[in-house]
Amino acid sequence: MSIQEIDIGSGTMPVSVDDENRVVLIDQRALPQSLSYFDASKFEDMLYAIKHMVVRGAPSIGVAGAFGLAGYAVSITSEGKSLSREDFLKQLEKARIEIQETRPTAVNLMWETDGIYNKARELVEAESELSPGQIAERLFESARQTMDEHVRKNRKLSEYGCDFIPKDPSILTHCNAGSLAACGWGTALGVIRSAKIRGYSPTVFVDETRPRSQGARLTMWELKEDGIPSKLICDSMAGYVMANKLIDLVIVGADRIAMNGDTANKIGTYNLAVLAKYHDIPFYVAAPLSTFDRNLEEGSGIPIEHRDLDEVINVNGASITVKDAEAFNPAFDVTPASLITAIFTEVGVLRPDFKDSIAKALA
Amino acid sequence: MSIQEIDIGSGTMPVSVDDENRVVLIDQRALPQSLSYFDASKFEDMLYAIKHMVVRGAPSIGVAGAFGLAGYAVSITSEGKSLSREDFLKQLEKARIEIQETRPTAVNLMWETDGIYNKARELVEAESELSPGQIAERLFESARQTMDEHVRKNRKLSEYGCDFIPKDPSILTHCNAGSLAACGWGTALGVIRSAKIRGYSPTVFVDETRPRSQGARLTMWELKEDGIPSKLICDSMAGYVMANKLIDLVIVGADRIAMNGDTANKIGTYNLAVLAKYHDIPFYVAAPLSTFDRNLEEGSGIPIEHRDLDEVINVNGASITVKDAEAFNPAFDVTPASLITAIFTEVGVLRPDFKDSIAKALA
Repeated sequence: MSIQEIDIGSGTMPVSVDDENRVVLIDQRALPQSLSYFDASKFEDMLYAIKHMVVRGAPSIGVAGAFGLAGYAVSITSEGKSLSREDFLKQLEKARIEIQETRPTAVNLMWETDGIYNKARELVEAESELSPGQIAERLFESARQTMDEHVRKNRKLSEYGCDFIPKDPSILTHCNAGSLAACGWGTALGVIRSAKIRGYSPTVFVDETRPRSQGARLTMWELKEDGIPSKLICDSMAGYVMANKLIDLVIVGADRIAMNGDTANKIGTYNLAVLAKYHDIPFYVAAPLSTFDRNLEEGSGIPIEHRDLDEVINVNGASITVKDAEAFNPAFDVTPASLITAIFTEVGVLRPDFKDSIAKALA
Repeated sequence: MSIQEIDIGSGTMPVSVDDENRVVLIDQRALPQSLSYFDASKFEDMLYAIKHMVVRGAPSIGVAGAFGLAGYAVSITSEGKSLSREDFLKQLEKARIEIQETRPTAVNLMWETDGIYNKARELVEAESELSPGQIAERLFESARQTMDEHVRKNRKLSEYGCDFIPKDPSILTHCNAGSLAACGWGTALGVIRSAKIRGYSPTVFVDETRPRSQGARLTMWELKEDGIPSKLICDSMAGYVMANKLIDLVIVGADRIAMNGDTANKIGTYNLAVLAKYHDIPFYVAAPLSTFDRNLEEGSGIPIEHRDLDEVINVNGASITVKDAEAFNPAFDVTPASLITAIFTEVGVLRPDFKDSIAKALA
């Protein structure tokens, strides 16, 4: 079945480039109340957008970061500016670090911005006749290709994933690993979309995903757009739905996967993995290869971002607790490989022993 | 150590009776923003208060229910009203059923209102010279005694519980099993209060407890009042704090305990029990004997209340999700006895095999 035949939305693209090469993001903070856009063409605005989660989801921030760095390259070489190839590279190096520091956990941001930077260095070192301005244009083109490839990769991994799920599955998912997160189509939600296209009838229990409620806000929105039946639950209800045999499987996305399969994802994912194991329910991770960290043997090395305590304390603009409450806000947790049934990637489904299967997939 | 020596608050009493025998409740819906009171002297107002969680927590609604029924008895026998002893009992029976239907899960409500009703029947059947009005007065006195006994029972079970915890414990709790819930002192929170009085230095991670945020609103408030260090977390973070060895034990209250030890408590408790087992962390239940259901062999027979979906969908007066979202709102879950380390009661600590230890405690 070709992409043209799809009659359900592939989700609106979280990152896009207009005719004047402006990089425009869906402002995911405003969903589902309003679908509005954020112009992230300026470098500082892109840094803000990633840090404050205008754009979020590991693959989407990877692409946003690539555009941020490539756009920066264009801006420092635009008309009237003269720059040596060495200074160009130096400034790019600084900008790359700045982008990478906005969100520490998702490795895609590192992977994609390293990709842009390495391409720049190659072109500089190739001693070609290309000016910094010409190199910058190629980097921007490269970011665009990266973005375009995401839908293809996500559709591929979704197809592989579909082979693992029953025809009328009841699925529990956490956070948003949809089109918004994965720069088109989606990973965990991509599998669900592809299942619907196959003629399956998926129904989805959606974890609210406190503190930022991406499940309630974004996943519920994407599923509604696609006409896939969904039920919102609080994160505290996952054990109940499993014990009452209301779900067949769990699928989640990933922010970083170590070489042994240990997987960092949105806080609360680990709770689900332990619960799924206890109930003997399959627990699947869906993620493109850019989510794997070749430099990391195991999950204990993944840096966990701690975010502002206001995210825990305030909901819809008002406090839910006492004045001056202390709180705790780790944004991610790490699910050990031993709790994961399989990982769906664009090159196939990885099964335990993950050390072997991941090494082969990345070879 | 006598009660007089306590220098930390025992929590404000959720139910109280003023000089004119008016039954006044703390409006727990308004906490922690304001400490306001709700006059539940009229029968209809008490029904509303229990159903809409002005008063909540299994032991507290048990006492509130007892006052509701006893107050009803007083109202139908007050000056100028003439009623046969048989009609008096019939009307009381109707009122008892009405109260018991307000909240189906907590058994204390059944236990305490059955207690009042049975006392009425005994007095009627005793063929004494007591008029319905005199019987009603005795019922009201009986409700008052029930209330007064709670602090004593809770302090007792808290003392027993203290023997099971380390000197500087880091404790995770869920929902509110404090003074507000347990009609004085508290059960899970009672253990923590008693630990502080012993000179221990407890610190508490408090599960927010979606959807109604009793942890964030009520437990955080009680701990702050008592100067016990607390940290608010989202329910999704429990696995993280356990995996990172930030807590030593879990203590929760209970809404109904079957004769085999299976325990119904606020939704999300079961998640914690599974997580605690996986991390080899003790999981304690603290509850007075009125929480045990002698008629129930195991937890599968406990009716689970499903509440309005608005509780899941709206927070602080605004929606967190798409328009017309479907949702799911079981208010309780059942933790199987196999996940419970021990149950703290006013007659001692019950250990597995719970079938034996519970039968002995209730004998």
